[in-house]
Amino acid sequence: MAATANGTETSMHVNGTSGGVAPPKIHLYTNHRCPYAHRAHIALEELGLPYEETIIDLDTPRPQWYLDINPRGLVPSIKYTVPGIENEEIIYESGIVSQFLCDSFPSPLLPSTREDPTAPLRRARINFFIDTWNSKLSSSQMGVMKAPSAEKDDKVKGWVATIEKEIEPLLANTSDKAPFFGGSTELTFAEVIVAPFLVRSFAFAKQGKYVPSTFMKMIEDLPNFSRWAKAVSEHPSVTKIYNEKESTEGFAKKYGKMMEEVK
Amino acid sequence: MAATANGTETSMHVNGTSGGVAPPKIHLYTNHRCPYAHRAHIALEELGLPYEETIIDLDTPRPQWYLDINPRGLVPSIKYTVPGIENEEIIYESGIVSQFLCDSFPSPLLPSTREDPTAPLRRARINFFIDTWNSKLSSSQMGVMKAPSAEKDDKVKGWVATIEKEIEPLLANTSDKAPFFGGSTELTFAEVIVAPFLVRSFAFAKQGKYVPSTFMKMIEDLPNFSRWAKAVSEHPSVTKIYNEKESTEGFAKKYGKMMEEVK
Repeated sequence: MAATANGTETSMHVNGTSGGVAPPKIHLYTNHRCPYAHRAHIALEELGLPYEETIIDLDTPRPQWYLDINPRGLVPSIKYTVPGIENEEIIYESGIVSQFLCDSFPSPLLPSTREDPTAPLRRARINFFIDTWNSKLSSSQMGVMKAPSAEKDDKVKGWVATIEKEIEPLLANTSDKAPFFGGSTELTFAEVIVAPFLVRSFAFAKQGKYVPSTFMKMIEDLPNFSRWAKAVSEHPSVTKIYNEKESTEGFAKKYGKMMEEVK
Repeated sequence: MAATANGTETSMHVNGTSGGVAPPKIHLYTNHRCPYAHRAHIALEELGLPYEETIIDLDTPRPQWYLDINPRGLVPSIKYTVPGIENEEIIYESGIVSQFLCDSFPSPLLPSTREDPTAPLRRARINFFIDTWNSKLSSSQMGVMKAPSAEKDDKVKGWVATIEKEIEPLLANTSDKAPFFGGSTELTFAEVIVAPFLVRSFAFAKQGKYVPSTFMKMIEDLPNFSRWAKAVSEHPSVTKIYNEKESTEGFAKKYGKMMEEVK
């Protein structure tokens, strides 16, 4: 770690590089508490890409130098250079950053569009899983977290029912040996996008913070989901920069007033 | 047009096929009033793909045979077959259907992920444009349409200010000769996704229905946006199945109670 001219911490991560492709120069602007930034970390880790990192303080107003990079002030952002091809291109919005990284380097995460005749359909199935998670589950989970304590048990039932209806069937072709989306033995782009939110919902439930701990017991009745969720939440690329305590406390500090405690 | 066993209208569309690729068998479940279904029509038209079409009545509860195809009951859905490769695969959600079609066939709409070293970035820029449109403009437009008549002028100013801030800069490299996203001379995936909503907002403004007609005058001050919007809204693939009057009336019938008239 070294202090930069901006007074923020910058560090260098050197992993292996993907097979045969020259590594780009990637600078990641991030905060390890943020689930959106977590997506980019998982993608970078799985792709084995080296990157430099600057931590953005999310508890104070963004400095002008960061707003000049990302006017929205959010994390993650990346600055991306491939000599002779792309020079300090700025990309932000976590889904777009992660998709860009997965599209740029061959890996088991996501087939290229022309990898084989079924690649576009496999990409569509992954997109559908992500879209379903975002459109159907997020509001159910927020409903639980914002509900008064007396209503939380009912709300949890609704959340689990939504997982059973919308997500459980989409994981039908997973197995103990191939627990990831589409029956993959390795992490996919689907997990890159949803894992940060999955591990945080587990953290809340385990701590009985906003989410009743009964949630963990109830999902055991969903064999596909629970097997998949266990594999995802224990995966080294998912756990690497994730600090459960700091993330939960960061969330509580920022959004706690909108949530209701379990009593 | 021929009546099917389901009592719905089915028709066959035969266009040219994209260069060198054997055409798949595509059955599209649609309704020409629906902006989401409109996306799939634009993609199919631009890709020159033949397809069969079944119109789904959106004014009555969905029949069980359609819920068996798409449990969400929405349009569009496609049933997609490529002999020996994919057999009657069902795909729904308009963004995913359109992306799947664009990823399956080479065209100027969207480069394949490995088309050249800058393709992933060009895809990311298109995704960012779509994401910005959906996350920043939709709520501004709805704000105008739902506002009481006396507040509409102020709300329109806010909507145009959002377009100026968020969209105008993203169209900076367009020109009279290359008016489409990214300075393309031809329609892109960005327009496939947003055109159906653009033409409907223009229709409301021109008719002074929910949207004050001042909107059309105000966007003339945004040179990139107005040039782009004119080219998009006049493009033959966009206008082909779009019936302004029927779409507006369909919207009014379904959502009119939530909107406020211009007085």
